[in-house]
Amino acid sequence: MAWVSATYLLASNADEVEKRAAALALEQSVEMPLEAVGDPNIRESIVARVASIEPIDAQRHRVTLQIATATTGEDVTQLTNMLFGNCSLQDDVELEDVAFPSQLLKRLGGPRHGIAGLRALLDAPERPLTCTALKPQGSSPQTLAELCETFGRAGIDVIKDDHGIADQAYAPFAERVRACQAAAERASAATGRPVVYAPSLVGSPRRIFEQAERARECGVRAVLLAPMLIGLGTFAEFVATFPEFIVLGHPAFGGASRISPVWLFGKFFRLLGADAIIYPNYGGRFAYSADVCRALANAAREPWESIRPAMPVPAGGMPVERVGEMIAFYGRDVMLLIGGSLLSAGDHLAERSRTFVQAVVQGV
Amino acid sequence: MAWVSATYLLASNADEVEKRAAALALEQSVEMPLEAVGDPNIRESIVARVASIEPIDAQRHRVTLQIATATTGEDVTQLTNMLFGNCSLQDDVELEDVAFPSQLLKRLGGPRHGIAGLRALLDAPERPLTCTALKPQGSSPQTLAELCETFGRAGIDVIKDDHGIADQAYAPFAERVRACQAAAERASAATGRPVVYAPSLVGSPRRIFEQAERARECGVRAVLLAPMLIGLGTFAEFVATFPEFIVLGHPAFGGASRISPVWLFGKFFRLLGADAIIYPNYGGRFAYSADVCRALANAAREPWESIRPAMPVPAGGMPVERVGEMIAFYGRDVMLLIGGSLLSAGDHLAERSRTFVQAVVQGV
Repeated sequence: MAWVSATYLLASNADEVEKRAAALALEQSVEMPLEAVGDPNIRESIVARVASIEPIDAQRHRVTLQIATATTGEDVTQLTNMLFGNCSLQDDVELEDVAFPSQLLKRLGGPRHGIAGLRALLDAPERPLTCTALKPQGSSPQTLAELCETFGRAGIDVIKDDHGIADQAYAPFAERVRACQAAAERASAATGRPVVYAPSLVGSPRRIFEQAERARECGVRAVLLAPMLIGLGTFAEFVATFPEFIVLGHPAFGGASRISPVWLFGKFFRLLGADAIIYPNYGGRFAYSADVCRALANAAREPWESIRPAMPVPAGGMPVERVGEMIAFYGRDVMLLIGGSLLSAGDHLAERSRTFVQAVVQGV
Repeated sequence: MAWVSATYLLASNADEVEKRAAALALEQSVEMPLEAVGDPNIRESIVARVASIEPIDAQRHRVTLQIATATTGEDVTQLTNMLFGNCSLQDDVELEDVAFPSQLLKRLGGPRHGIAGLRALLDAPERPLTCTALKPQGSSPQTLAELCETFGRAGIDVIKDDHGIADQAYAPFAERVRACQAAAERASAATGRPVVYAPSLVGSPRRIFEQAERARECGVRAVLLAPMLIGLGTFAEFVATFPEFIVLGHPAFGGASRISPVWLFGKFFRLLGADAIIYPNYGGRFAYSADVCRALANAAREPWESIRPAMPVPAGGMPVERVGEMIAFYGRDVMLLIGGSLLSAGDHLAERSRTFVQAVVQGV
């Protein structure tokens, strides 16, 4: 029998924690009193087990459960259900980390391209990479395409849609993606270096699968997806269906605040196949600390059995002036995503974009 | 121009709140500094607006934004993105409520059957309804089917799968659903009253759509879905694709603790088409207060333009002894879901199930 080890932080003191941990094990498996489970095979191989309890402080304990792999039904949605389905509703529980058995890791598969594939596509084997966003939404396809070409000619590696750009009347998906991809290709031809445009795919499963077909027809090689927004199972199905795309994972709607961002973004998004993982950098307009960001980036990149490293993409209100600091902090396996700070330059957009690119090149 | 009005609770004091609210409006629309938005049409019709700010106490304010309907691209996933995509990552923000323009309400559609359709299927026009769960997972299809027949013969209206029951090797979906549906039909034939079996559909979009086809072939009339687990857009697509099913919405993975449960479960699940909405009752093993539960049930049932009422289904460790109290609290438009408390009865399962049914009938 194989088990998934899930670690939770419980707001529970030493007197209560054993009972609380046992209740959590039932909640995340059979969802009924143990006395009412008559079948000894179910008690033995299906009921989750409390593997360890360790104190953090007087009011908190770290509890690891073993959850039977058989209950996950070879499905990402059901796996998520077993890990944090019902207990997400109990506000004394936070999902901190999960250890998967090797076989499950292999089946989930992780990034299809990862850091190496992204670097190969960009012909940039060593230096940190650059990324920016097309915005604001409300712009026409032509405006977005012009912006894309400006960024591409300035030397930026990956130009993604803002995550709020979907399939809106003022910039329909097919028209917009065709225009932006053509702009990226013009920039690439002019500069003699790869320029990758990554459109945002947002919508119901049917809609994003159709969008992916359209994008592929235009020659798009990378896409932006928000796994929590489209559903983790939908994300996994997408990656399996379109292995040719480099997948950038976006954290939108990921604020299930009691899932550790290090685990959710750094590990689980990676495991499900995100090649690059966008997350809020410290010191920006989101609340993560430098320690959380370091741990998240390390989780995305560190060796993990057969799972390819994913590229960390810190973002969220970063000015060009912080490039040096960010490279010193993250090292070279990083893709810096700067958007608003470039667009604020107005008429000096191209110049500021080149400054960004140069800062990254010089920062190494 | 149409606008969606989204209300947030901001942990911000009087000195800061105006600036914070303005930043939130940018975050949830153009995601860039306002100065950098050159196009006057975008400033006018795409940038979200701060509609009102009202103090709650010294450290908190209630802020309502108007978000342009045009940005939602006629898609539930993108709507969710605009409402709580990025700001879900900012821990000073909680999404409290949303007011939709009538046209958007009509398009989203809400329950396809609602309370009236559920009552018609069950031939129970007025009394509170009863519901229980087949469990534990790990049981064989035969065991689950026997349990289903016992519950059905005892007079329980709706017998749903435990939400952890998916498509596992020990109880494959097709075999299990065929057996349980047949058991429900036998119970119905024996008692001369409708018995509704609602299998749990869990998985990637492709998998749950296939499961729905199989369930329909067996004669299944109702299904259990967890919208947060499968993705809100996947849920909406499911409801549109299979309007014939009565849909029970399950809260699993809904612990995005900074979305109000009253809004997420009571209103948004309803709007997306849940006919009945399962949620943790007060006084059980989850943390909601009686006030939250009352507000949630009212949100699910109260008149809302063209949107049908959805049936509130309080659940989560409720003993049969609380039936009277729950009916007094919720009134008759409620479906009481009791699972573990019945199964704890062991050999007296059928008797305890009948007691549950009688308590509901007498409780009115």
